[in-house]
Amino acid sequence: MIQLKDCDRVWINVNLATFDPAVSDPYGLKHHCALGIHNGRIARIDPMSEVTATRLPYDVIDGHNGWLTPGLIDCHTHLIFGGHRAQEFELRLKGVPYEQIAAQGGGILATARATRVRSKEQLIKSALPRIKALTTEGVTLIEIKSGYGLNLTDEIKMLEVAKELRNRHSVKIINTLLVANALPPEYAGRTDEYVDMICQQLIPELAEKKLAEAVDVNCENVAFTMTHKARIFQAAIDHGLPTKCHAEQFKENGGASLAAQMKALSCDHLQHISEQGIVDMAESGSIAVLLPGSYYFMRSQTVPPVELLRQYQVPIALATDTNPGTSPLASIRMMMNMGCIFFELTPAEALAGVTINAARALGIADHYGSLEEDKVADFCLWDIDHPNELAYQLGHCPLRQRVVDGVITDVRQ
Amino acid sequence: MIQLKDCDRVWINVNLATFDPAVSDPYGLKHHCALGIHNGRIARIDPMSEVTATRLPYDVIDGHNGWLTPGLIDCHTHLIFGGHRAQEFELRLKGVPYEQIAAQGGGILATARATRVRSKEQLIKSALPRIKALTTEGVTLIEIKSGYGLNLTDEIKMLEVAKELRNRHSVKIINTLLVANALPPEYAGRTDEYVDMICQQLIPELAEKKLAEAVDVNCENVAFTMTHKARIFQAAIDHGLPTKCHAEQFKENGGASLAAQMKALSCDHLQHISEQGIVDMAESGSIAVLLPGSYYFMRSQTVPPVELLRQYQVPIALATDTNPGTSPLASIRMMMNMGCIFFELTPAEALAGVTINAARALGIADHYGSLEEDKVADFCLWDIDHPNELAYQLGHCPLRQRVVDGVITDVRQ
Repeated sequence: MIQLKDCDRVWINVNLATFDPAVSDPYGLKHHCALGIHNGRIARIDPMSEVTATRLPYDVIDGHNGWLTPGLIDCHTHLIFGGHRAQEFELRLKGVPYEQIAAQGGGILATARATRVRSKEQLIKSALPRIKALTTEGVTLIEIKSGYGLNLTDEIKMLEVAKELRNRHSVKIINTLLVANALPPEYAGRTDEYVDMICQQLIPELAEKKLAEAVDVNCENVAFTMTHKARIFQAAIDHGLPTKCHAEQFKENGGASLAAQMKALSCDHLQHISEQGIVDMAESGSIAVLLPGSYYFMRSQTVPPVELLRQYQVPIALATDTNPGTSPLASIRMMMNMGCIFFELTPAEALAGVTINAARALGIADHYGSLEEDKVADFCLWDIDHPNELAYQLGHCPLRQRVVDGVITDVRQ
Repeated sequence: MIQLKDCDRVWINVNLATFDPAVSDPYGLKHHCALGIHNGRIARIDPMSEVTATRLPYDVIDGHNGWLTPGLIDCHTHLIFGGHRAQEFELRLKGVPYEQIAAQGGGILATARATRVRSKEQLIKSALPRIKALTTEGVTLIEIKSGYGLNLTDEIKMLEVAKELRNRHSVKIINTLLVANALPPEYAGRTDEYVDMICQQLIPELAEKKLAEAVDVNCENVAFTMTHKARIFQAAIDHGLPTKCHAEQFKENGGASLAAQMKALSCDHLQHISEQGIVDMAESGSIAVLLPGSYYFMRSQTVPPVELLRQYQVPIALATDTNPGTSPLASIRMMMNMGCIFFELTPAEALAGVTINAARALGIADHYGSLEEDKVADFCLWDIDHPNELAYQLGHCPLRQRVVDGVITDVRQ
């Protein structure tokens, strides 16, 4: 292990919410520390009591007793899309029934149409403000799902846009191919053929082009049978791609159990998951990704079974689910607050949900999600008295620095 | 009426959500206009079809088909306070009962203690980030209530801080003396004497010093009888100060009817108001100020009777209620969204609620709250397709310019 003196940069006078499992506190608290980075990784964490001036390198940042947390991770978004659905929102609030809105061409297929007709540059331009909204709050890594292209060409387009966004803003992006999100109109009455296309063309091509890091199977959509969904999971596995799923947001259907059998990284939504589903997730090591934004925006009445998830020790992640139909809410801190208010998570669980458990949900916890030696130096410096403030108040964001690979990307004040 | 040519500045190629009652649409929509200002007031609004280059002055801003709305008004906040209550929030989520938290010194008296011990400069420093969070979203005018000082000295301190904040940031502030918010410990068992102090010392002194534009009587607090509250209303009226009230957030108690009899500008919260209360408000012309933030944060189960308010044509305003205990949420756009989601307001009602009706709730609608000739030139330029977007999405804020007295105070992008 290298000495502080040999680090590229050292933050002194900082308190840490490490989420290091070796620290027994729920935040993994370490008070009055120095954190040194080297080659974009966390190299050392030392108590300030052991740090003398002669042990410090040239580049020292005084944290003035602020707090470091891991960089926030938004592990479930659909933030690339064409258009928006503000008019649909207005119609709904004027009392127009959902069926009528759908019959008038609203809903997910409206977003699919708007996404298909837009160029890559147009999609990049409309996604960037949402990404910046997240990074302004301390997000350093975002998962982005495809799923509005629906056909080979437009799904590839969406994933290429996600890849290109990495070059446009200082944030890390993980691409997920989302399938079985809707049956595109051109495949009406030919669901089997559509699933063939997904399994035999889309997944193999994306795996070869390395355009997707995972495959998310929407296990909610009734247009597809459990057999269809199992085929898609298997195709992903056969091409070496980890899986995840949308499951049991609206009703219990065994979707999480199917995904758990397939060793899915995560099952997301879960408002109606059964106890057996949770048992299956615990056995497979799948992470529960809860999405308070769509719970709120859709005025859902059923909360996910948080107490059972705790009981079976299924780790809980939180994400924004940013999308135009059910969660047009690009704010990870709002999700932390809503996770506490709606789902009665503790502030420590909310913060773990957007750091270490979000990293687990993406299969990257070996390198991300906690402040530990040898992990990637993605973290935030906050002007707060205690990390419980991050879930408590909204409006003003107390972020002072956002650090990605050890590089300070934003400085406030 | 002056010509466009003689205006100090003209915005061209803008669409307007005017909230001018002369326009029948709920937003008061005017498409493709030019808006000219002169001496800090809106001087002209003309259709672009009538605007030729020779009719324009030197200072022209091209709105590129963006939208102008009135500057947003947050008409109910408690944003000056010492400390915060994040730890109390955490305790509550860990399952500690409210009584135990209060017994340990939590709740409003904790904030009163923290506010009393802080200097004016400390209170200014902690309030400014909340004010900036609001103005970043397009807020041009904020009402700030006192109420955490509880005694003469500290209530005056709070109102002096509110007044001083006008000099620290480009935003207008209206000061409201909030009384009967809690019985301070030094008056335990001496409620009558405390009310004497309010009526005979506090209100007269503030009226003389012109430190408060209105008096808000907390009609919720059970420490004070209706007779106490009526005495306070009367003292305010006797000193020429308009009144408002917190009423019927937790249960029906006739508070709104009392305030309406006293011709209160507004009654705020109102989750449990009776139909008779609404009738009384309609007769007195009081505005209903709904506060979705505290509804949400306190996990209330009863929504205010919006349909009855509509039926009796009581105008509805929305505000943040920013405060450390029940709404640590300094975001007016979140309140617009929550007003739609929780209270089923339409996006037009939500926007009216933070413009024209918020101005009415403060008694300043003759000069503020709509885009009409001769009104004060406080407005926002937004990069949106339609004003319904403002209540629909959160995270990214599409504000391009915020204009106060005709002066552009913030420019994004």
